[in-house]
Amino acid sequence: MRLLTLRLDEGTRAGRIDGDLVTELPFSDVGSLLAHPEWRELAGGRGTRARRLEEVDLAPLVPHPSKIFCVGHNYTSHILEMGHELPSHPTLFAKFARTLTGPADPIVLPAASERVDWEAELALVIGRRVRHASLETALAAIAGYTVVNDISARDYQWRTPQWLQGKCFEQTTPLGPALVTPDEVDHARDLEIRCEVDGVTMQRARTSDMLFRPEAIVAYVSQIITLDPGDVVATGTPAGVGDSRRPSVYLHEGQVVRTSIEGVGTLINRCVREAS
Amino acid sequence: MRLLTLRLDEGTRAGRIDGDLVTELPFSDVGSLLAHPEWRELAGGRGTRARRLEEVDLAPLVPHPSKIFCVGHNYTSHILEMGHELPSHPTLFAKFARTLTGPADPIVLPAASERVDWEAELALVIGRRVRHASLETALAAIAGYTVVNDISARDYQWRTPQWLQGKCFEQTTPLGPALVTPDEVDHARDLEIRCEVDGVTMQRARTSDMLFRPEAIVAYVSQIITLDPGDVVATGTPAGVGDSRRPSVYLHEGQVVRTSIEGVGTLINRCVREAS
Repeated sequence: MRLLTLRLDEGTRAGRIDGDLVTELPFSDVGSLLAHPEWRELAGGRGTRARRLEEVDLAPLVPHPSKIFCVGHNYTSHILEMGHELPSHPTLFAKFARTLTGPADPIVLPAASERVDWEAELALVIGRRVRHASLETALAAIAGYTVVNDISARDYQWRTPQWLQGKCFEQTTPLGPALVTPDEVDHARDLEIRCEVDGVTMQRARTSDMLFRPEAIVAYVSQIITLDPGDVVATGTPAGVGDSRRPSVYLHEGQVVRTSIEGVGTLINRCVREAS
Repeated sequence: MRLLTLRLDEGTRAGRIDGDLVTELPFSDVGSLLAHPEWRELAGGRGTRARRLEEVDLAPLVPHPSKIFCVGHNYTSHILEMGHELPSHPTLFAKFARTLTGPADPIVLPAASERVDWEAELALVIGRRVRHASLETALAAIAGYTVVNDISARDYQWRTPQWLQGKCFEQTTPLGPALVTPDEVDHARDLEIRCEVDGVTMQRARTSDMLFRPEAIVAYVSQIITLDPGDVVATGTPAGVGDSRRPSVYLHEGQVVRTSIEGVGTLINRCVREAS
């Protein structure tokens, strides 16, 4: 099953992909749908209206998650690229709902930053409240997978010891297009992940290169805090970010970032410079 | 004016302190009240019922903020204690709503951590949506001040390069008791801040020792992301944390942490060890 959040004139609306059509569901977005314990049945039920998939405007898959956790240093290739040793625990940082943007929306390059970079990532969305979860419970709590680009303002990220301020600029982080349930992609264990900028491949790796698997991250975070339905976890990026290239490369106005995960989906986002 | 969030059998409720009484206001909590542009008039209006202040049970002042920003390295004394140079920009990290606890609630010492520490801080609550704010606009966007203890699991905080996982354990961070409007405390420019553990003073400083003033932090964050009514910013802690003592000292089951800011309020929280 594939679910998405439509942007309509009257607000957002959850939808289900049925072939070339999107069936509207009676929930304001995928997050609201996941808040119901019986969300699978509700998502599979009769919808209110069908639209052509190619004509819909998509919001961030979960527009208002209560938490967004991101993992740093999780692909062996990226860890080595950054010159780090393999970590024993996941490195966690946060984003906020306002940081998200839709899967085909512009990426807003902050007026204040000259060093905006890409980070293609697999994201998971929580479908069941979990705390102190075993790996098995954690796996069962994952509603599905989607694509995120953890766009990062490197000048702000490195300005202080904490990355947050470079990671949470408004409307920088595309999330979507669809929630793909685990059965459709074998829990994303070994999928190609790729980031292209203006058609040039910048990142290309397989999710099997992850150090901490999605269920391990969910189990770990759940030792710290309850994960709620609709919460998003971005699972880290592979090698090939612009900041690690020599010479380093950053995003510019008008460039198009294409972020894709095999069988999960594709984000296509044009960079637009914020008015200063 | 002083506002708080009551915990009633039927849920939470915003209230206003009138001498020894608390007048209930028709909003579910202080965050919901602040979401109204005319919140000052609404908060000053006729309430639905009065209760004795000493008898009320208090929830976290804002139970569901959309964002909690915290500042590290903001008191000259604490920066020097940690062995750092004075930073040129605020260091920012996040907490989540589930991390909060009420001003007289237990602090839940995580079963997984042996090194839970205190950090008395002044917090501010946003009362008006701001983005790209000047210092003047930022100052006007502060609805008021309150007290927070940025309880930190040092073993988790130092485990990876990012502090977040040591800063967001569930029900560890008391926030409150009341939102005190700026006029009552001259924008908290020079107030004594203190943390006591079982009656022993561990931290004692003045808010005038802050490197980045509240309005400077709000202006800085607003360059990155929109701050919304009810958002909370914790402004950093002074010297005297347990982790910097020699030998180091951490919190134990049964200890009582008293966190107070002159003219703003006092948190009194007993440490309770989470069942493992």
